[in-house]
Amino acid sequence: MNRLKIIGMGEVLPENKIKFGEATRYRITDEKSHLLMAEGAIINALKDAKLKIEDIDCIISTSSVSSQPLPNMSSLIHERVALGKTIPCIDINTTCTSFITALDMVSYMIEANRYNKVLIVSSEVPSLALNKDDPKTYELFSDAATAFIVEKDNRGESGVITALQKTYSEGAHYTEIPGGGTSFLPTKYNENNKNMYKFQMQTLKSVRFSIKILSSFIKEVISSTKEKVDFIIPHQASQGLEMVLKKVNIKGDSYLNIVNDYGNMVSASIPFALKYAIDNNKIKKGDNVMLIGSAAGIHLNAIIIKY
Amino acid sequence: MNRLKIIGMGEVLPENKIKFGEATRYRITDEKSHLLMAEGAIINALKDAKLKIEDIDCIISTSSVSSQPLPNMSSLIHERVALGKTIPCIDINTTCTSFITALDMVSYMIEANRYNKVLIVSSEVPSLALNKDDPKTYELFSDAATAFIVEKDNRGESGVITALQKTYSEGAHYTEIPGGGTSFLPTKYNENNKNMYKFQMQTLKSVRFSIKILSSFIKEVISSTKEKVDFIIPHQASQGLEMVLKKVNIKGDSYLNIVNDYGNMVSASIPFALKYAIDNNKIKKGDNVMLIGSAAGIHLNAIIIKY
Repeated sequence: MNRLKIIGMGEVLPENKIKFGEATRYRITDEKSHLLMAEGAIINALKDAKLKIEDIDCIISTSSVSSQPLPNMSSLIHERVALGKTIPCIDINTTCTSFITALDMVSYMIEANRYNKVLIVSSEVPSLALNKDDPKTYELFSDAATAFIVEKDNRGESGVITALQKTYSEGAHYTEIPGGGTSFLPTKYNENNKNMYKFQMQTLKSVRFSIKILSSFIKEVISSTKEKVDFIIPHQASQGLEMVLKKVNIKGDSYLNIVNDYGNMVSASIPFALKYAIDNNKIKKGDNVMLIGSAAGIHLNAIIIKY
Repeated sequence: MNRLKIIGMGEVLPENKIKFGEATRYRITDEKSHLLMAEGAIINALKDAKLKIEDIDCIISTSSVSSQPLPNMSSLIHERVALGKTIPCIDINTTCTSFITALDMVSYMIEANRYNKVLIVSSEVPSLALNKDDPKTYELFSDAATAFIVEKDNRGESGVITALQKTYSEGAHYTEIPGGGTSFLPTKYNENNKNMYKFQMQTLKSVRFSIKILSSFIKEVISSTKEKVDFIIPHQASQGLEMVLKKVNIKGDSYLNIVNDYGNMVSASIPFALKYAIDNNKIKKGDNVMLIGSAAGIHLNAIIIKY
């Protein structure tokens, strides 16, 4: 086990709340909010941890989409929260499951004393890329930011028990924004091709494929440790995941489902749900908690932590 | 020391070679080349290591700019080289110094047996974002891709001795592409604001700032280990770096300068120069080699490896 404990958590939800039937979604009203939400979540996490930014040894940004093509997102977040400090900052991206990947990777660095206190921030504004003509995706997403501060647990009570990631690029184009990078440059944008720059999801194909691959993936994660899983935090939009989990005998009350109230927040979804579960006493000290999700890529990603 | 050895190296340079005075630069001629070059570099590295893609445990993409906003770059590379395999893939980004950050991070995972063989691929096409009206930057960059395969050195002869990163966001906007992310969306592109979507560098400010911060940074890296540095591979465009290195008593012949022949290849620069030094016998087995660079962010990044 890589010893590690959560010592601070913060989040920001946009004030603008909208309803689609029973579902509640949060949406920003201007583009500045991407970095502003990251800043707010970090301030809240530092307050929660009773720390100052200079106590942090490394800042990891796990946003799936950046504020600018260059420099990297974490530098622009650094500019808002750590100007004048020399805290190293790094972007880690596995789209919706970036938080799991970051936690996995930094747990090794923390265990080996390369860094002690690490801040992981996810800020996402999917609403800026949604296509109004596609209600399935348009009504699914929320904008949000989260920040977690972790450090070495010298008492060895908490930590990362196991982690597993697999990438299935057969589904690389099931969920994508085709235009805006180098393969279809921003400078090619015009009225006729504007949908190329919007979020596109082949929902049915994606769900079918996920169901096909999730079952053996979950069995492999669970069987990689002798510890039993007490509670599951799924990515709130990994459709098919709940169905598959039922098949592998996970009880309904040990599985967090808040997608109706909060939507899919991309990389902020998993840490947001983890914070929600902790704040609402769904998880108690010593519980083994599995964070799990499928992500554009397609990545399947899971980590089991002892809380 | 995190035990790790290089077991395969590959590169791709575009066929299109252009001259600016004495300087040689390589430039792609179509946008497909971003992923194609990544693919080519990986094929070459696998051949060099006498491995197949299924022997790789993790693929890390270290490109500073992606082929699409979503999914992440490594998924799109995976689609070309590992379709049907489930090798996990991750993007790590600290702009020009991403290779150093990736090597630093994965060295901990390799040391702890989380992954054994890791492939780190950098593919960059800066020419697509250059502004012809700014000869200082227009004439500096080359397009290129590199791939390195590393694995645990069970004999303990090679590895990562020390690494250091610091981020100075005072300079976050000295080198940037302002438009194309969420803060200035691709969908806002028009003829009047097209320069917002181009690479911009305040060269003088950037060089001055780098010189100011590099000296103490280098001293800190060097003094973090008792091992002496035998050879230095700088990022080929970290202006001011050579000057500062001379001040801290590095001999000219232990410092690789190939910027005239190859230009700045963004994140591919450092691994390209490392491969060049190995291929040209500038480095011998057992040498302590420092990779060092400054990058848009501004990040200073250094790693000392025993080759």
